[in-house]
Amino acid sequence: MRPVIVLLTDFGVSDPYVAQMKGAVLSALPEAALVDLCHDIPPFELARAAFFLEASRAHFPRGTVFTAVVDPGVGTARRIVALVRDGQTFVAPDNGLLGLVLAQHAPSDAADGPEGDATQQPEHGGNAGTTRAFDLSAHAAGADVSATFHGRDVFAPLAARLAAGEDPADLGPELDPGELLRLPWAEPEPGPSADQVRASVLHEDRFGNCLTNLSVVPWAQRFAPNALLTLTPQLGAGLALVRARAYADLAPGQLGLVAGSQGYLELCMNQASAADETGLAPGETVAIGPAKDFQE
Amino acid sequence: MRPVIVLLTDFGVSDPYVAQMKGAVLSALPEAALVDLCHDIPPFELARAAFFLEASRAHFPRGTVFTAVVDPGVGTARRIVALVRDGQTFVAPDNGLLGLVLAQHAPSDAADGPEGDATQQPEHGGNAGTTRAFDLSAHAAGADVSATFHGRDVFAPLAARLAAGEDPADLGPELDPGELLRLPWAEPEPGPSADQVRASVLHEDRFGNCLTNLSVVPWAQRFAPNALLTLTPQLGAGLALVRARAYADLAPGQLGLVAGSQGYLELCMNQASAADETGLAPGETVAIGPAKDFQE
Amino acid sequence: MRPVIVLLTDFGVSDPYVAQMKGAVLSALPEAALVDLCHDIPPFELARAAFFLEASRAHFPRGTVFTAVVDPGVGTARRIVALVRDGQTFVAPDNGLLGLVLAQHAPSDAADGPEGDATQQPEHGGNAGTTRAFDLSAHAAGADVSATFHGRDVFAPLAARLAAGEDPADLGPELDPGELLRLPWAEPEPGPSADQVRASVLHEDRFGNCLTNLSVVPWAQRFAPNALLTLTPQLGAGLALVRARAYADLAPGQLGLVAGSQGYLELCMNQASAADETGLAPGETVAIGPAKDFQE
Repeated sequence: MRPVIVLLTDFGVSDPYVAQMKGAVLSALPEAALVDLCHDIPPFELARAAFFLEASRAHFPRGTVFTAVVDPGVGTARRIVALVRDGQTFVAPDNGLLGLVLAQHAPSDAADGPEGDATQQPEHGGNAGTTRAFDLSAHAAGADVSATFHGRDVFAPLAARLAAGEDPADLGPELDPGELLRLPWAEPEPGPSADQVRASVLHEDRFGNCLTNLSVVPWAQRFAPNALLTLTPQLGAGLALVRARAYADLAPGQLGLVAGSQGYLELCMNQASAADETGLAPGETVAIGPAKDFQE
Repeated sequence: MRPVIVLLTDFGVSDPYVAQMKGAVLSALPEAALVDLCHDIPPFELARAAFFLEASRAHFPRGTVFTAVVDPGVGTARRIVALVRDGQTFVAPDNGLLGLVLAQHAPSDAADGPEGDATQQPEHGGNAGTTRAFDLSAHAAGADVSATFHGRDVFAPLAARLAAGEDPADLGPELDPGELLRLPWAEPEPGPSADQVRASVLHEDRFGNCLTNLSVVPWAQRFAPNALLTLTPQLGAGLALVRARAYADLAPGQLGLVAGSQGYLELCMNQASAADETGLAPGETVAIGPAKDFQE
Repeated sequence: MRPVIVLLTDFGVSDPYVAQMKGAVLSALPEAALVDLCHDIPPFELARAAFFLEASRAHFPRGTVFTAVVDPGVGTARRIVALVRDGQTFVAPDNGLLGLVLAQHAPSDAADGPEGDATQQPEHGGNAGTTRAFDLSAHAAGADVSATFHGRDVFAPLAARLAAGEDPADLGPELDPGELLRLPWAEPEPGPSADQVRASVLHEDRFGNCLTNLSVVPWAQRFAPNALLTLTPQLGAGLALVRARAYADLAPGQLGLVAGSQGYLELCMNQASAADETGLAPGETVAIGPAKDFQE
């Protein structure tokens, strides 16, 4: 089986950094298939990277090694960890990047704060299921390791070794996965009125679709197909919203709510930007409920 | 022979969508070589994607599977098709993306309208030569298929199966390639004066080169080497233009017309942007003819 | 050993040009691993590309073939060359792109001008150490070679042949590497006061770090750990600067000087942009010295 190594960083593609990570991988493991998950994470936005990682992992083969490097603490004492789950391995700094892989939507996190704001302090997480974790921090101590680019000097070589089949237990001591840092995660909440749910925007994609924190299960079932709804942005007036199946089922100018491909309900339009139409941005909250205002 | 799968989308690279398509391919066919043709197609611009596909296919090996996903109708009843031509396979929604591969510049299309505007309705095309087409729409019916991301859930797995050597005839019923949708395509026309040709701009590239719809054959022969010409933009005054061989043969500030690498004559400058100099944008028309105004 | 081919261009990723180069490589050498070093070099910025190439090569395996195409003279008489050094091969137009690989920081260049401005005329370089060079220009003469895209029609096929193990001596006559063109390169200079060094900014990265021309060896040793320094931009007032080890060792708002991963000292901040804070841009000069002003 050809080893697959997936790279996720906030390095962009205008500098030689991602390429140097790939060179480091190929120097150790020339047969690796390298896949860019995303390098356009805004600098230091841990929450966005954590979300992309969690939303994407199921679409990669067993054996894949994910290497996530959004690492504002590079060169300091933060831990370097490997997490093994569902036959895949995740290598990252222990700063919350692996929090959603570790245990998605742990209820204990819901009260901690809003929508995974990267500027908030990560905190120690809860139960981690059947995952295993390892502390690989010792590999950052070599003489050839820069203090400013562990992606190339530490994470890439570790990813190559793990993808080549080395046992993470041979690379560092095992950790309780529950010790790994996690970021705050907002769960949907009831309100403000009895038949509404308060959701938040996780991500705005290239098309202007606004991915909410309403997971497809169970939320796709809570709103009947073609139901007329009202979307009330945090500070705005109510907008008509239709529970739709596909983008193209919406009329021009109509706001829709679809079961999105990343596991969450999405605010969307047909060949237009729901973000522009609603003025919403990641981190903002909305209320969604039956279309009372529009039916009266 | 290592299978090559080429991806062409309007997904951008700031979301995890392209990576998830690659994960889906590698899950089925780990040895595939994945090549990004372009993911920066402006959302829903079918004509641009169709042009990139046609301009690029000859540069890839026989056996390559091209997967083109610019798909505003995702999740609706539009067909999913595979086209086999010249030993290569093209998988795409049947929305015009494959129109230029199917039969480039069919004269029957010339009268239909200008420069392949993606907002115009695609129409049924004409003769398709020796190509074969297949209707693979049935593969969008699975329980695991989202209604919003067929690129990952339908096209990528199909591409992997085709690249692995499966016969498209085993994947769906054969179609008359002439039934596939095509986009309007503008042919150059004579005029407005007897010695001029009216051309349109297909694409502006990163360097500001304006690719016209004057195909190298026969148009490169119609203008003598180093000929002095006049370029008259749609709404502008005539500009001096030199028929040149290479960009660097032009003097600073001089507008040139070269036989471009994508099969068409290009308006260009030497280390400067012809688009900026002329104010031209894709879809606009120009007249090109002998340099009367400048010789008098 | 799987052949690795690295591509470095100013083509961007919004056009099909890079993909067509990859298609040309895979048509000849399907097993090649293709790595994008960078395609976001600003058009024609030879100095930036030359720097990226030099900073990255050590991170790739022996046998790697680097293909660098920033080529404003495409289609003209400029030479096409291959350089062999340290078991790696570099293919490029002979326009200065290989100048830093050839002989980094040759002292003879220091007096030639400032920081590798791409608009300056490249010049003949000095001693090239143990490298070997070959003139492959004859390969641009084929009937299938466009005058505007040698990246696809000449460089990519040559890279595939070299990566497949062909001897460059079989592809063209050997050259004296000292004949290859090099770009100006600024060395740090003493001044303006006796305890200061005048440095220049080579590159601003995505994070706003300003890479200077103060190479880690010997400059990292010249400033004591945690030393308080003064940074005086060309036209600005002195700013406090701390010699730090890692970005995160800096306090919020503090300017730092770290030993960067690309081989040079970097002006930086902790999760903020040193370029924004200082107003510096590539090519500008600064003076760095002890923190006199701030200690008095």
